[in-house]
Amino acid sequence: MQKSAIKNGNIIREEDALVPVTLREVQSNFSVYEALRVVNRHVVHLDDHIKRLESSASQIGLVLPPVPWQEWIDRLIEKDNLEDATMRILVYGGSECMIFITWQPLITYPDSYYSEGVAVTTYFGERYLPTCKTSNLLLSYLALNDARSKGAFEALLVDRHNQVLEGTRSNFYALIGNTMFTAPDNEVLSGVTRISVLRAAKELGIDVVMRAVKLDEMCNATSLFISSTSMAAMPVCRLDGKTVPCDFQTVLKIRDLVRKWEVE
Amino acid sequence: MQKSAIKNGNIIREEDALVPVTLREVQSNFSVYEALRVVNRHVVHLDDHIKRLESSASQIGLVLPPVPWQEWIDRLIEKDNLEDATMRILVYGGSECMIFITWQPLITYPDSYYSEGVAVTTYFGERYLPTCKTSNLLLSYLALNDARSKGAFEALLVDRHNQVLEGTRSNFYALIGNTMFTAPDNEVLSGVTRISVLRAAKELGIDVVMRAVKLDEMCNATSLFISSTSMAAMPVCRLDGKTVPCDFQTVLKIRDLVRKWEVE
Repeated sequence: MQKSAIKNGNIIREEDALVPVTLREVQSNFSVYEALRVVNRHVVHLDDHIKRLESSASQIGLVLPPVPWQEWIDRLIEKDNLEDATMRILVYGGSECMIFITWQPLITYPDSYYSEGVAVTTYFGERYLPTCKTSNLLLSYLALNDARSKGAFEALLVDRHNQVLEGTRSNFYALIGNTMFTAPDNEVLSGVTRISVLRAAKELGIDVVMRAVKLDEMCNATSLFISSTSMAAMPVCRLDGKTVPCDFQTVLKIRDLVRKWEVE
Repeated sequence: MQKSAIKNGNIIREEDALVPVTLREVQSNFSVYEALRVVNRHVVHLDDHIKRLESSASQIGLVLPPVPWQEWIDRLIEKDNLEDATMRILVYGGSECMIFITWQPLITYPDSYYSEGVAVTTYFGERYLPTCKTSNLLLSYLALNDARSKGAFEALLVDRHNQVLEGTRSNFYALIGNTMFTAPDNEVLSGVTRISVLRAAKELGIDVVMRAVKLDEMCNATSLFISSTSMAAMPVCRLDGKTVPCDFQTVLKIRDLVRKWEVE
């Protein structure tokens, strides 16, 4: 099947979703993006994603034109007859914005990732403009490659103060007893799914503290988990090669609430 | 005139120098580059540029295939009959490297920039992997835009210790009496032109200290200047809107030596 994409509102062939390497905005990755989850032809939490896209753009002075996002997305869903998909909005700024919407099959994970947990590693490095979802992603790329080379699923980024802030494509949480720790909004990319995780914690009677745990506090954690649009909430069973405890029941309750609210 | 470019050794139309936005390496700017100066059909310091390109690639684990650089560049010079030009080598890594060589008219600056100096601003921010010339350039892009919005020519990047390390596309030097300060190689992108600037300083009997000056030491400077492949050595006359002293004669002597050695 010939896949399609959207460029500035128009249907194009996916293979024509290209950018010129001579353009300063491409060379300097002056661009913002969002990853969306499409389930049953419906985009999950579109308003939250667009709000974040606008916030990212505004933080770097990238002027977004008004865009009928739902309409453009529906155009692509209809053209390629998509039931489920993971979509990507990518906007390059400049004198004329280039706005792409592309898709791939819905990213899903084996059940065992949830029932047994995933391995994560730590990686030292600080994201530039952490509250902003830009294409300035080299650190995340290298950190994730490092994790994969060690057989792990995700890398957690650790800052100069030894704070474990977030994953390369996920938010990070540590449960210590009945208290859940996660970095404050101004230190990380505040995930759209994290909004639901925080709500779920509240619903389950878990105390939430918006503070990142430090590396040397990780040994006190009774559970670690990560969240993202694709993962919902995913338990962690290994940290830098060492087995860590996990209260699967609690993490999976959070996951189930996150997924339930997606379709409400 | 239809401009040409090189892609993986082949001549293409410049308008076909494109990369797919669906590729992870493009999305994450897993790429390295060099800007070259072509004068009288000759590439200046090609060996130094290729050495740095290879070093940048190696630092991020980007595997470069063997490339006959001189041959590819000559192919483009011949095809577009280039006397003088500023060329750009851009390499995206991944399972198959994409290697582009593109060109634009030789970047030159008005004589007044050298006889009167240029205005610069300061900008807080630290380059990720400072010794590595990657496309992870959002900080530099934003810093330079900020400088331009204030009528300045270049932005100098200042780190968490208030060290004035380098420009967004230049190295930075402060002369205090007969001593020239510039950041050590491990803290900045060690410019190809900087090699010549350091040699010129030696030739002129100037003492060189490889240490960045701090913001609060800038008031002691008797001259500030910047260097790059396009600029050679360029005097600075204003810093954050305030006039600063400059020994033009010394800076221009350095510039003349830098330019002289280009064609030797």
